[in-house]
Amino acid sequence: MEHYLPQTIALLTRTPAALNALLRDLPGTWTLQNEGENTWSAFDVVGHLIHGERTDWMPRARMVLHFGETKPFEPFDRLGHMQESQGKSLAQLLDEFTRLRVENLRELRALNLRQEDLERRGRHPALGVVTLSELLATWAAHDLTHLHQISRIMAYQYRQAVGPWSAYLGVLQCAGHSAP
Amino acid sequence: MEHYLPQTIALLTRTPAALNALLRDLPGTWTLQNEGENTWSAFDVVGHLIHGERTDWMPRARMVLHFGETKPFEPFDRLGHMQESQGKSLAQLLDEFTRLRVENLRELRALNLRQEDLERRGRHPALGVVTLSELLATWAAHDLTHLHQISRIMAYQYRQAVGPWSAYLGVLQCAGHSAP
Repeated sequence: MEHYLPQTIALLTRTPAALNALLRDLPGTWTLQNEGENTWSAFDVVGHLIHGERTDWMPRARMVLHFGETKPFEPFDRLGHMQESQGKSLAQLLDEFTRLRVENLRELRALNLRQEDLERRGRHPALGVVTLSELLATWAAHDLTHLHQISRIMAYQYRQAVGPWSAYLGVLQCAGHSAP
Repeated sequence: MEHYLPQTIALLTRTPAALNALLRDLPGTWTLQNEGENTWSAFDVVGHLIHGERTDWMPRARMVLHFGETKPFEPFDRLGHMQESQGKSLAQLLDEFTRLRVENLRELRALNLRQEDLERRGRHPALGVVTLSELLATWAAHDLTHLHQISRIMAYQYRQAVGPWSAYLGVLQCAGHSAP
């Protein structure tokens, strides 16, 4: 399957602006509350996205290009953002995510990847052989999985306030489908 | 339960800007494709949100204030947007949604609702007695259910491109939880 990279980059470019428009200066009832013990708030999710920009996507793309299948990626730490986010405001996190994403996309564009580069293979520590194309598509889909999660976390805060309408609101029936 | 209206308005204010930042000028592969027969694209969802601004939220709020429980709301037409959206571009729909939301929030603010107004009751044609507070909370949660849906529809377009990572992407396991 051909990977049309401009389409992936178009989405990756928009996510920081979308989160900024949705979350900046929104009351903490929406952004700082979670779905119960051991779940994340929207604030936590933005921290996780930042951690991905630092340690996941472009570092792994570089690994594929430099080492191919010979060296597995560093495992991604799903709780790696907890310490980094501490003491910061949501506005600071949104700024940081925006800045890192701009830098990473600048680097991605500068690689001038051709179709044959996208077919190059790397090694995921748990999933085994993956292609650069799959890694970059996952970067975009990962933004969407967390936008999906943020909208669910926020809706959860109104699960009682909506009264009988809860039956009609699909997002309130979503229990999540992955570790946070 | 006390309904803190500024919190609801804060979210309702941000949704058009968030959708605009996410969707405007994004390739049609993301915005015009759906999840299969009889499902919606992101374009369709924005049309549905417009139809809600026109015929659902503020018209029903007015019904509660004018008729109380004596007169049921008009049933909401879930396919009502189909004709209205025809021939329009996504950019036009985003502009229309933004404009209608601004107008509706201006009207809502002008009502200067107090806690006792929020407790006033109306009649939903299927759900029975509901309060104005529940209606307004549902307006906000309805934005979130459709942001949840849009992120799922878009992720679906990359369900194959992500390769083995699909196992880790919660949004790809989400089958939706309501009629579109």
